[in-house]
Order: sequence, then structure tokens, then C-alpha cells
Amino acid sequence: MTYCLAIRVNRGLVFGSDSRTNAGVDYVTKFSKMHVFQPSTDRLFVVLCAGNLATTQEVFNHIQRDLQHPGEGENLTSARYLFEAAEYVGQISVTVQKRHAEALSASGMSPEASLILGGQIQGQPPEIMLIYPQGNYIAATDETPYLQIGESKYGKPNLDRLIDAGTSPADAARVALTSLDATARSNVTVGPPFEVAIYARDSLAVSHRMRFGQNSEYLLALRSAWSRGLQRTLDELPTFDWEAESQESQARSGC
Amino acid sequence: MTYCLAIRVNRGLVFGSDSRTNAGVDYVTKFSKMHVFQPSTDRLFVVLCAGNLATTQEVFNHIQRDLQHPGEGENLTSARYLFEAAEYVGQISVTVQKRHAEALSASGMSPEASLILGGQIQGQPPEIMLIYPQGNYIAATDETPYLQIGESKYGKPNLDRLIDAGTSPADAARVALTSLDATARSNVTVGPPFEVAIYARDSLAVSHRMRFGQNSEYLLALRSAWSRGLQRTLDELPTFDWEAESQESQARSGC
Repeated sequence: MTYCLAIRVNRGLVFGSDSRTNAGVDYVTKFSKMHVFQPSTDRLFVVLCAGNLATTQEVFNHIQRDLQHPGEGENLTSARYLFEAAEYVGQISVTVQKRHAEALSASGMSPEASLILGGQIQGQPPEIMLIYPQGNYIAATDETPYLQIGESKYGKPNLDRLIDAGTSPADAARVALTSLDATARSNVTVGPPFEVAIYARDSLAVSHRMRFGQNSEYLLALRSAWSRGLQRTLDELPTFDWEAESQESQARSGC
Repeated sequence: MTYCLAIRVNRGLVFGSDSRTNAGVDYVTKFSKMHVFQPSTDRLFVVLCAGNLATTQEVFNHIQRDLQHPGEGENLTSARYLFEAAEYVGQISVTVQKRHAEALSASGMSPEASLILGGQIQGQPPEIMLIYPQGNYIAATDETPYLQIGESKYGKPNLDRLIDAGTSPADAARVALTSLDATARSNVTVGPPFEVAIYARDSLAVSHRMRFGQNSEYLLALRSAWSRGLQRTLDELPTFDWEAESQESQARSGC
């Protein structure tokens, strides 16, 4: 399993991914699921992937090859809009899946992969898009400023409560880490190292790319601060009516 | 969909359930999913249910009928241990599911239901047990002090971070509400009224049974305090190394 997410705020984009890959519980390995493409100075793309690892590696190989042999068709440089890049990547993904579908199906496996493509092309706003296994896509909006692929449920409540368009990219990166960490705690097939990349609007470059291993000092500090904060929040939640009554009755009886 | 949970702490048990039921998105109704049985003064049971509503209603009818006609076989009064009650309820569930499986399967539907049974029989410790659709069951332990049925993922991180054997029943009830509320926010087929019941160890009676509608004053206050607490927790998370640097460089440049 995998958990990747992308967040779109006014001041930029944030990408987060775990690094655990498993083919059964007895073959668990680490692979980065975050790929940065900067084929020319006027554009920057970050791609996150979930699903069949062979499919996504083949997709990345084809994207790279298309860039090295321009003129033979579309590539990330020829896209005029981010959605054209999403359509191009979606088409590669569908083609790769089709090629292996029959053989994989015979072994009871699926070639499916989901991708998140984000970034900016000069003159266009930054965007993030979720590319489905079928090759179609949706973009994040102000109402839904984040996208997730893979094991998305455990980490969603933090995003719902803490992310809006005005969130700073650094805060969004911290929320992404709490979302990744909550997921890893609940699903053993999601795990560190966690990768986080921050893209500042109109910069056309990744401003910060960070990697947090299981024992990363920052990750331990974040986890402990998060737990302390939740505990304090719990301590300060409103009490039930009857708690006041039972305290009063204790007071009256001199306890 | 449904979300129900039960928590076992040293001082007692806490049960929580939502009340939304849907047969397709165009038939959404409200049904309580929490049932209390006190067939005699030496025992108390709370049952939570998820899955096919007809199955669970039939299970409850049979439990009631067996109590009204003792001597014809097992019932909740004849169980000497909570696990015997779980086996009895599990057996009823399997029988009911089998009766309707063929007809439901022909319509593409499933008769499956999951149940949580909790409570105490005098002389035994309080316990909570998850009864699978297949009729077998697992009990919560000190290491895993809670059980969930239905849409369990969104609400799990709060339980993982905030519940242990030493948590007070009232705090566990508040955590149960935050867990229900996080789930309802992310999945529209889970929703209020939320029901919460608290059982104090060795009391053999439900000490508090509460019901919180969508606009319940307490629920609104809890939700707002929870959001404020999370926001403050985010504000106090450790900053990244480079944030200090960029602040310093801003200070140096006189910004």
C-alpha cells in the first residue's frame, strides 16, 4: 500500500509521500514515490504514485524517454497547460496498464496505478491533479484544496480540519507529515521515510525537499508535539452536564 | 454505512454509534444502532450493529424472543461468561444471514452484519467483543482497548493517540465523539444523532446514555473546541530548520 497527498494553497503547493512498498507481507521494500521533472526552466512538475510499482516505474521511464527524444510526439515540454500534461501522463499510464493487464490478471494481480501530478507552467497558475487508473483526472479547488492516493482515510481528518487556501506552505507541510504519520500508525504497509516537497508559487523550482526516516529527530519531535497537543485538546474539551453535578454532589458530601 | 465503536478502560466501558442508515443515496434514514439488554440484575449488555439493517433487526428480535421464552434454549440470561453471550449472538447472526443469503445474493445484496457486544456479568470483568459476520469474535485487550465496526478508518487515529487503559470513562466518551464526528465529516453515510453510553465497572447499569443531534449545543461546542485545539497544536509544532534560516536572513536584510 501507499499514501501520497498534495495540497494546494495560495502561496504554493506541498507534496507528501511515504516510501513503503510491499508485494505480500514478506516482501516489504522502500521506494521513493515522489518524482520531480523540470524539463525546461519555464515549468516544474512533481508526480506522486500509488498502485502497481512496475506500472508506475514504466510510466516514469516513458516520461523520461519522451523528454530525451523530443519531436516524436507529446512530452512534458510540449504541454501548454498542466491539464495537458495530466492527459499525456494519463495516456501513458493507460497504455502501460493495457500492455500487462492480461498477464497480470492471469496471476490475479492488477496493473492499476493512480498518480498525482502537480506543478506550474509559466504564465499559468500552480495546480495539482489526481490521475485515475483510467487516465482521466480531477483538479483540486479552493473548496477541496488537497488530493490523496492510496490509503487515504486515516490521514484525511487532519487535512479537513487544518488546511484551507490561506494555510502557509510550511504549515501545510507539517499537516502533511501528521497525515502521513497517522496513516503509518494505522496501516503497516504505509511507512517512513516520508518525503515532503514544497513548491512556492511562481518560483518554478522546488524550494524544499525533505526526507524523514523512522528515527528522524524532526519526525520524533513533531510526533511528540502532536500527541501532547491532542492530549491538551482533550483535557480542554467541554465537560458533560452530569460531570458538574457529580462534582457538586461530591463537594456537598464533603469528598 | 455505519460507524460504531466501543472502548474498554480500567474504570468501565464506553459505547458510541452514529444513526444514519442508507439503502442507496436516495433512501437515507435514522435508526439507533445501540441496544441495551438487562435481562436480570446480575448482568448488563450493550450491543452495537453495522451492516444489513434487516439482519441486525432480526437478530435483536430473536434475542428478545429468547429472553421472553426461557427454557427453550440459550439466551442472554443463561450465558455464564460474556464470551458465551458473544457465541450465542454470533450464532443467531449466522442463522439469520443464512436464511436470507440466497434471495439477497440474487439481488446483488449481502446479508452480512458485524456486531459489538459489551457489558459485564457479575463476578466477571467487563469486556467488549467484536462479533464478525461469520459468527466468530475477538475481545479487546489492554494493548488494543477499543473495537470498531463499519466505517472505521477516519476515526481510528484519535483512538490510537488518546485512549489507554487509564483514560477516564468521561474522557473516553469525548474521544468517541471526536472519532464519530471525524468520520461523519468524511463520509456522508455516517451521521448524527450520535449515541454514547457509559458503563461504570461493576455497576451493572448504564450510568449515562446520551444522544447528540446535528445541532446539539454540546456537539457544536466540542467540535469547535476540537478544531481550536488542533489549530493551536499545529501552530506549536516544531519549525523546519530552514524556517529559522529564512527568518534570520529576513532579519539581516531588515525586513
